[in-house]
Parts: sequence; C-alpha cells; structure tokens
Amino acid sequence: MKLRCTKCGREYPLESFIQRCEICNEPLELELLKGEIREGKTVWERYRDFYPFELEIEYSLGEGDTPLTKVQKLSKELEVELYIKNETLNPTWSFKDRGTFVGIHRALKLGFRKIGTVSTGNMAASVASYGQRFGLETYILVSSTIPEEKLLPIAVYEPKLIKVLGDYGELYFKSLEIGRKNRIYFINSDDPFRIEGYKTISFEIVESFVPDYVLIPTSSGGLFRGILKGFLELKESKIIEEIPTLICVQAQGCSPIYKAFIEGKDRIVHFKNPNTIAHAIENPYPPSGNDVLRKLRKYKGFCIAVSDEEILNAQKELAKEGIFAQPASTVGIAALKELRKEKEISKGERIVSIITGSGLKFLGALGRKLEIRECTLEMLNKCIGL
Amino acid sequence: MKLRCTKCGREYPLESFIQRCEICNEPLELELLKGEIREGKTVWERYRDFYPFELEIEYSLGEGDTPLTKVQKLSKELEVELYIKNETLNPTWSFKDRGTFVGIHRALKLGFRKIGTVSTGNMAASVASYGQRFGLETYILVSSTIPEEKLLPIAVYEPKLIKVLGDYGELYFKSLEIGRKNRIYFINSDDPFRIEGYKTISFEIVESFVPDYVLIPTSSGGLFRGILKGFLELKESKIIEEIPTLICVQAQGCSPIYKAFIEGKDRIVHFKNPNTIAHAIENPYPPSGNDVLRKLRKYKGFCIAVSDEEILNAQKELAKEGIFAQPASTVGIAALKELRKEKEISKGERIVSIITGSGLKFLGALGRKLEIRECTLEMLNKCIGL
Repeated sequence: MKLRCTKCGREYPLESFIQRCEICNEPLELELLKGEIREGKTVWERYRDFYPFELEIEYSLGEGDTPLTKVQKLSKELEVELYIKNETLNPTWSFKDRGTFVGIHRALKLGFRKIGTVSTGNMAASVASYGQRFGLETYILVSSTIPEEKLLPIAVYEPKLIKVLGDYGELYFKSLEIGRKNRIYFINSDDPFRIEGYKTISFEIVESFVPDYVLIPTSSGGLFRGILKGFLELKESKIIEEIPTLICVQAQGCSPIYKAFIEGKDRIVHFKNPNTIAHAIENPYPPSGNDVLRKLRKYKGFCIAVSDEEILNAQKELAKEGIFAQPASTVGIAALKELRKEKEISKGERIVSIITGSGLKFLGALGRKLEIRECTLEMLNKCIGL
Repeated sequence: MKLRCTKCGREYPLESFIQRCEICNEPLELELLKGEIREGKTVWERYRDFYPFELEIEYSLGEGDTPLTKVQKLSKELEVELYIKNETLNPTWSFKDRGTFVGIHRALKLGFRKIGTVSTGNMAASVASYGQRFGLETYILVSSTIPEEKLLPIAVYEPKLIKVLGDYGELYFKSLEIGRKNRIYFINSDDPFRIEGYKTISFEIVESFVPDYVLIPTSSGGLFRGILKGFLELKESKIIEEIPTLICVQAQGCSPIYKAFIEGKDRIVHFKNPNTIAHAIENPYPPSGNDVLRKLRKYKGFCIAVSDEEILNAQKELAKEGIFAQPASTVGIAALKELRKEKEISKGERIVSIITGSGLKFLGALGRKLEIRECTLEMLNKCIGL
C-alpha cells in the first residue's frame, strides 16, 4: 500500500512521514482500495475491507452513520428528489470527525504523540476532542479573527490553542513545516488519511441509493476528494456501476476553485480579500484546490459559486424542513436552486446535498430580528389567540 | 390499547383527547407492549412491535440510534465500566427528538394541526423543528428569563414563540388547559407518547449489554419514565432477564424529587427558589415527580442530587474524554463519583449515564477564562515551542 502524488503519481511508502509530494507540493492520496461490504453496526465495521490497517474502534466516538433525510418541501418546489446527508449528527457536530478519527491513526502509526490542526472552527473542535479521546497533546492554530462563540467549543477540550495573525491560506503550509520541526502531526484539511475518513460518506449514501448528483461544500478540497474516492472505490469494487456527478460548491466571497474552473485554468490563484458569511469554507488558497480542478475535469463534475444572500436564504429554507445547518453547509441547497433555474439539472433527478456542520456552531449568522411575544401566565390564553 | 393512570390505574381510550388522569391529575401511560426485535436500520424499524400504531418514518429526521461510548479515563479512575449514551447526536442535539417524533403521532391521530410545548430550551428546539418537518403550526412557550443564545436555535424554525412571565412549574398545567381551549396539542415533557419515544434509549442500550445501573438526569420525570418503561417491556418480552437499577439524578439547586425521596414522602412539594447552572433540568414542580417517586420505590431505584460545582467539574472531565455536554447532562457523572466514594456502587459494575444534550446549547455555562496564546505567522515556531 502506497501514498501517491495526485499530480505526478510519484509514490511514497506509507511508513514515511510525508504529507505532500516532495516534487509537486501537491496532495498525496492512498491508492484505490477494493472490498466487499461486511456485516456490522458501524460504518467502520461494514467497510473494514477499505482500510489497509486496523482501526481502533474502541476509541471511536460514534462518528459517521449519519441520517440521509429526504427534504419534502424543497423536493417538491424544485421538482427533484433532494436528500440531505446530515453530518451535523457527528460527535462534534460536523463531518470533520470522520476524517479526524482516521487521520489520528496515521499519526499514531508514525509514532507521534502530538497532533495539531489549522482550522476556522469545525476541524479545530474535532481534533481537540479526539486528541483528548486518544490521550494526545493537541495544538490548535486558529485565525486571530475567530469569534468567541467559535473558540469556546474548542477550548472546552483544553488543547494548546494559538491564535495566529497572518494569512490563513499560508498557515496550512507553515503548520506542516512546524510539525516536522516539532514532531507534531498536523492532521490538516486534506491530509491523506482524513480523505480516507471522508470516503465513508459515499459508502453510507449508496446503502440507500446511488444519487445522480452530490453537492459538496468546498473549501480546502478534502471533503470533495474523500467523497469522490469513496464512489471510485465502490465502482472499482463493483458495488455501484457509475459514480454520481459531483458538484463542487463554493461561496462567491471566497471562490478560488470556481474562478480557476470557469477560466479553464489548471491551477488556483490565491483569492484576494475573502469575505463571506460561510466562514467554514473560507479558505483563500485551498491546499487541494488544484487537485479538485483535475478531478472535476477527469470525472466531468462541475463547480458553482453562490452568494451570501443565497446561502442565508437556503439556511432559512432548510430550517423549514426541521434542519438547522451552519451557513457553509447550505451552499449546496443554494447551488441546486440556481442549477434548477438554469435547467442544468433536470426534473426528477436524485440529489444528495452534504450538510457539513450544525447551525449551533454559528448563531451569529442568524442576524435577523426575533419575533417573540411576551405575556403573563394570566394573559396567556388571550395572547395565544392573537 | 389503553392509556392508564400511573396512580389509580383508571383507563382511558387512546382515541380520547386526554393528557392526565381526570381524577388524580397524575400522568397517563400506555400499557406495557411486548414484541420481538426485528431487522431494520433504524430503532423505529427494529422495535416496531413496541408501537401500537404505524410510525411515519418518512418524516423522521434520524432521531435515535445514538452512540454508546465507553469513557476510558473515568472508567479507570472510578474502577467501573462507564458508558455514556450520547444523546447529543440527535437531529436537534438532545434526547427530546425521540419523544417529539412519537409525540407528534398522537397529535395527528387526534386530528390536531397545531402543536406546542413548554420548555427551557431543548424541547422547544425539538418541537419547533418537528413542527416544521410535519407541517404543523407550532406554539413554543418559554420562560421570560431564557438567554438569547437559547432563543436563537428555537427561533430559527420560526414557531410562534412566546415568553411567559410567571412560574415555570405552573406553565405546564396552564398550557394543557389552553391547548384544550384552542385545539393545540401540547407535547409536554411527560406526554404519554413522549414516554413511548424515550423508551427506545433502553432498547438501544440492551443491543450492546444490560447495564447494572443507569444514571438519568431528571427534571419533569418523562425521561426517567420512558427509560424504565423500555426496560420493563424488554423484560416482559423476555429479551432481558432483569432490569438495571435506575438512578434519578437532580441538581441540588432544584431537587423536588430528591427531597421527597429522602424524606420518605409520597408526593413532591413545589421547590422554592430554584437556582442551578443545569437549567435544562430546573423544573420546580415536575409533572411526573410523584410517579417517579412511586417507581423508584417499586423498582428499588434511588435518587441523588449534586451541586453545581460537581456538575461543572463533571462537564470538564467529560470533555477530557472528547465529549462536550451541557451541564444538565453531566449530573449523572457527578452522581457516580459521589456514589463510588460512598461505596453505594461497587467496583467493576457496568453503568450507563445518559448525556441528554449538546454543550453547544449553553456556551454561557463555560464561564472559565480561556487560555489562548496569540502570535504572528513568523513567530509561530517559537510560540509552539513554549
């Protein structure tokens, strides 16, 4: 089993501490694994064939096996069958936990007792949580502009928490360098083993059906790559016949992959002055950006960017289905509305939109004025009738 | 199939709109159901024998089937096998969703198109969410002292939200009266069908093992009753031989059931001036309080109350296992520490503590000073080494 550069194909042994290609500086990926679906309660047990090493299930916090929920009102309105993969039901309430759980295995196999990450929120909470779970020293690097409401759910796990002044896109690369110097394994957004965690999303989806399209909120590109790898492995294993069309969705306010995609470029360019309500996908220089571009072309996926107004509107509409998602999660719904309007997706298609994190994570996004009546116990009957 | 008064045994037909016994004003309960465990992905499918009506699974948001996680550090420290039933992985991030999902079925069967609830937070969010999901008009009555961070995750679902000035214990009874007048089905904390939802927690636990003890954070008494009913039905069905010892845990700052229990009383008394950090279990006059007392005696359970300091300490310790729970959820851990110290629970016992809701729901409880370093990208290597 080898790690392979996603660009030049150069191979690296799994046992070497290497996180990106030494020649291209592009992300590495495990070769495609093949297997059968086994019996088991958890996704890790059912898909153990797809892991080239033993997973330490006794340290699992129950990540994965999230609901795939059909949203009735939006399906009707958009004349499609729309399902959401509700990743808010993970141990730290975002999809990151799948990747963190698997990612930690690589750190442990390489003999690390210190781990870290660079994150705007979700991944920080996830790595801090699993760091405690596995008993590791944990370093969390966050952007200095992070709001208090996002810091508290990280700080509760008591990691070494550092606010870093400077470009968030550069911080990713800087952290890998510092990790090498200080023997800290940084399980960053597109770490090769993180991808191995995310692929379980695809495994779970096909247990219900094979969708026509999958909408993927995209920041670093790690989630996109993981979901694609999952479907490819299922196809290689003859569990599915065709892979769905994957749609990479970005926020207009920070859309380096989208920009390169529509301009027909091979490489992303650092996005200047990023500014979007969807902070969880606000990476101006996605470390897997070039690879997402390569894969969009190879597998005929497409890329779309949506505005903050559309994102917040989608958040509101999803709440009307009973699901409270953070703004970065609802870009898929916003994109679908656009794609249906432009008839790029036909009536009746089966679509899965990945809802990446809980709305509780970012109450600050709910800027609206609350409509709340107030009355006494005695006046309640009258008040209710109004 | 009948509803029966938990005190006098008087029976009421399921088809009548009745929520408490007309004679005793005590809570009603469905008779014990028996069945077998069936094949199925969700708890509703596997335990369909235990429901005397069809559940509308297509409206499920994926409630239930939450992880049962062994916590390693606390198990070692306390010399027991401690598992937490992690109810924070429900669609609105608390156990309430199980009860809301089933509770709505009764409202629909009785022909209601309006539902409501009285809640300090978790149940309000849950009922507001499922109200949207099922397309019902939803009335949420909250206490006028509720903090903004708890209102937002309710308001996002756009229910009719009313702050009520007056005694929270009385509000429960007042709401049932108003519901009758205005054709609103109030799915309150100990609604008979809510209990039918909570019993799935026991069903899921025994799929792993039958514990010696179950620690249950207790406010209204609905969760306690649901878990007990689940174990009793499993015993009646010969799926388990003995039921675990159930431990009702309250916060010292609002402990009407505990007070009556240790004083050997039959009835709870309205708790004066409740004051605890565990707001989610701060009901000064629990509507199922008397029934919990009856059941604690009948099934040889016990009751314990813990201080806010112990609760917050338990929250911190649980975070060291990677799990961030709201304070009301950690009373079970706090109680266990006490019970082990007093040797009321022996070494080696297998214990499940119910973690009722996510820590994200109440960041305000984390009053502590955050330890955060701050540095520039250039100085990061130095800063990490410190």
